[in-house]
Amino acid sequence: MSAYQELQDHFRRINHLNHIQQIVVWDEAAMMPVGGGQVRGEAMAALNVVVHELTTDAKLADLIASAESQPDLSEWQTANLEQMKRTWLLATSVPSDLVEAQSRAAAKCEQSWRELRAANDWNALLPLLQEVLNLTRNEAELRSEATGLSQYDALIDLYEPGLTSATITALFADLKSFLPAFVESVLQKQSATELAPLTGPFPIESQRELGLTLMKTLGFDMQHGRLDVSHHPFCGGVPDDVRITTRYRDNSFMQALMGVLHETGHALYEQGLPSAWRDQPVGEALGMAMHESQSLLMEMQVCRTTEFLHYVAPMLRDTFAELASDKSAWSDDNLRGHYIRVEKGSIRVDADEVTYPLHIILRFELEQDLLAGRLPLADLPEAWDAKMQQYLGLSTHGDDRDGCMQDVHWMAGIFGYFPTYSLGAMTAAQLFAAAKKDSPELLAGIGRGDFTVLLAWLRTNIHGMGRLLSAQELLTRATGGPLDSRYFKEHLQRRYLDGVG
Amino acid sequence: MSAYQELQDHFRRINHLNHIQQIVVWDEAAMMPVGGGQVRGEAMAALNVVVHELTTDAKLADLIASAESQPDLSEWQTANLEQMKRTWLLATSVPSDLVEAQSRAAAKCEQSWRELRAANDWNALLPLLQEVLNLTRNEAELRSEATGLSQYDALIDLYEPGLTSATITALFADLKSFLPAFVESVLQKQSATELAPLTGPFPIESQRELGLTLMKTLGFDMQHGRLDVSHHPFCGGVPDDVRITTRYRDNSFMQALMGVLHETGHALYEQGLPSAWRDQPVGEALGMAMHESQSLLMEMQVCRTTEFLHYVAPMLRDTFAELASDKSAWSDDNLRGHYIRVEKGSIRVDADEVTYPLHIILRFELEQDLLAGRLPLADLPEAWDAKMQQYLGLSTHGDDRDGCMQDVHWMAGIFGYFPTYSLGAMTAAQLFAAAKKDSPELLAGIGRGDFTVLLAWLRTNIHGMGRLLSAQELLTRATGGPLDSRYFKEHLQRRYLDGVG
Repeated sequence: MSAYQELQDHFRRINHLNHIQQIVVWDEAAMMPVGGGQVRGEAMAALNVVVHELTTDAKLADLIASAESQPDLSEWQTANLEQMKRTWLLATSVPSDLVEAQSRAAAKCEQSWRELRAANDWNALLPLLQEVLNLTRNEAELRSEATGLSQYDALIDLYEPGLTSATITALFADLKSFLPAFVESVLQKQSATELAPLTGPFPIESQRELGLTLMKTLGFDMQHGRLDVSHHPFCGGVPDDVRITTRYRDNSFMQALMGVLHETGHALYEQGLPSAWRDQPVGEALGMAMHESQSLLMEMQVCRTTEFLHYVAPMLRDTFAELASDKSAWSDDNLRGHYIRVEKGSIRVDADEVTYPLHIILRFELEQDLLAGRLPLADLPEAWDAKMQQYLGLSTHGDDRDGCMQDVHWMAGIFGYFPTYSLGAMTAAQLFAAAKKDSPELLAGIGRGDFTVLLAWLRTNIHGMGRLLSAQELLTRATGGPLDSRYFKEHLQRRYLDGVG
Repeated sequence: MSAYQELQDHFRRINHLNHIQQIVVWDEAAMMPVGGGQVRGEAMAALNVVVHELTTDAKLADLIASAESQPDLSEWQTANLEQMKRTWLLATSVPSDLVEAQSRAAAKCEQSWRELRAANDWNALLPLLQEVLNLTRNEAELRSEATGLSQYDALIDLYEPGLTSATITALFADLKSFLPAFVESVLQKQSATELAPLTGPFPIESQRELGLTLMKTLGFDMQHGRLDVSHHPFCGGVPDDVRITTRYRDNSFMQALMGVLHETGHALYEQGLPSAWRDQPVGEALGMAMHESQSLLMEMQVCRTTEFLHYVAPMLRDTFAELASDKSAWSDDNLRGHYIRVEKGSIRVDADEVTYPLHIILRFELEQDLLAGRLPLADLPEAWDAKMQQYLGLSTHGDDRDGCMQDVHWMAGIFGYFPTYSLGAMTAAQLFAAAKKDSPELLAGIGRGDFTVLLAWLRTNIHGMGRLLSAQELLTRATGGPLDSRYFKEHLQRRYLDGVG
């Protein structure tokens, strides 16, 4: 057996155990009764140890070196070998005791955060988050040494391989100069129209049925996936068995429904990964920015177009307007008005696509300052407030709950992740522009609930490519150029000021 | 670290991975979309390999030998060490290639059986089942050598440690001489009363709600478990997170409801296992006969008593009688009549508690003949038909679908398991008799939906004991004697001829 083949068998085994992990993680979020948590944590830790042992197996270094000199590898095999090497390097560049210390500190911080956020108690959170930050700095230092990247870039690379803060800074600089004034123009334009409120109740079973219907419309294969409920919506499982979740409220349907469409975008990526390579690293999805581009392409680019809303509005009326007191609120125009409403708010997860990048830029800038030690953690609330005032004209002074305590990411030791959300939004705009250019009939199809042209384009250009190419190469091949913020700006301009798209 | 402590850590790790297996097996039956099956099979196989490697780890032999000479072990630790040794012996006494060949043959046979049974095609099944039987004989031979038990006993021991065919034969001989005439007496008595049929529809959501209510009544801890749907009802998961399933039909509620009560009996055993030993082999439930005794104790002994039906009848009327055309069918007496109806039929899983042991005795006798080679597999349909005529006066000639092809067990290579069903029924009768004797107020409590006395008795005498004692020791301690068929016969006599209990 060649070294490459031996590696392939080894990573297939890891892949199968990752499958098991994925299903059990989904179970924990969507199915597990509350009393099962403690022993489940121990069981998952035991499985993680097995996977870690396999991923850091001492024999891998030699096998990888041997395989790298094999002359007979195909393009896919070569890319697969690169991914194996990356996986092995990431796993071996941080010692187990640091990983364990991080897990413990993050679990403690995250657990306390749930209560401390509700109590708006920054001072009590500070020492816990400081411990997490200190350990993350250690990690960044070690990863920087192992990869040759800067410390912050070494963290970003965990979530979106190949992406650097220099690239992000340039892209965000453009948005930063464009968005604040643009937001004001949109708000002024929207103030001319008053929206009639959509009042419920919206029975949860009806919301669920409609969500399932639209999942299928978008192309979700129900033979290879499920829709369930969890506290935080997510897309989990494995390509052959994708588990998405949402969360229902009976006084609003828009959030749950758009949540389903968002997660369906993620799911379509997973379901479309190259079938021949699914048990290998090269068959996995690219980084988080590309994954987010797939969810935002569906949720933001496609499913809020006039065309799609025109298709969906009669379904919404059939499903919900029966119960509504004001039936006129269910006109196509009023529904569309709700779906593209822009509002300045302090909460990232509630933000619309126009203001969202400003929330991200704020975090991108602050997390670099925190990691570099330029910003003492104790000063974070003040720095947060200052940037909120600068970018969105809002103050979070004295309201850390909805300021620097609002997100779980840093509590969980996740630094370098936030930029991927807005990179995803920009990528989505660029991909949708290219798909429409390649297939002029695409939008008309979407207006009839026919996603086949769009899905075929994504399958060919993104999903089916797995990790054969880097994200930049893939984007260049699919759209003619590297990531460029102008597609996103043009999209916003068209939808929010020109009133089309 | 002492050898014992090292073993304890090792088996804790195995236990945690078993936890993961349990959850994923449940997921496969209750949640997994059909398209996820193939890759799931591969993923589970990978996890099974990890567990097998840990269970057969070469270091275990020495560690066990060292621990056996440790003078400081407590009673529980000594019993735990015995269970570890048993687990290791069972795992090492059959070579991996035989286990693999068995898995493949059984999977092939079981898969084909689903279609061949529907087509009543015994001849096509024969070679597939022959292969399974041949491999099981190999296994029995190896296990016999490793344990010193007879070949058949070595298989029985897998499912109910310590149980032998000699014990079973003696107990079954008693039932065999008692039941055929008894069945006739019951049928004659019941023919005097005509039951009014319970007509639906019975909305599934109502059935589910009632099932959940009664699970809680029996003592199921919903913080540590769930109720879901699967094709074949079962009790899975782990003691801190017990997953039971049932299956609903909207034209009948009795089967699904009694199914829930049956699985709740299993679940209560799991939830009551000793909390200090849950991550060790000694903290697990005893064999399948004891487990079945817990489900049958609830389903058959307790939940069909006049007392419990008196408690439950108003709930049934509230839930279902609204929709019923004939409301008089919902009287306490008529409901009770349905719940203790005896009928001769050819299908084991549909049998009542009176005729059930005859189905088991038939299988117990035939599987011994098959394994010993006294009965060629080709002659099984004829032998089956002859015994059905002898025990139940029914012929399955030409109807192998509902004859020797009706059960999955042999197709899956499971020989030596069938007797545990009826051992469980006899054990249940003996335990319930002892519990009532120890707590004269117990039945009155059950008539008020109060299971606390019964559950406390089971917690103390059975559940909380884990595998500290053998089943026979446990039963003797709890009831004053070893397993005796007279309790079961007395129970049948009282309920079906005397009309009480």
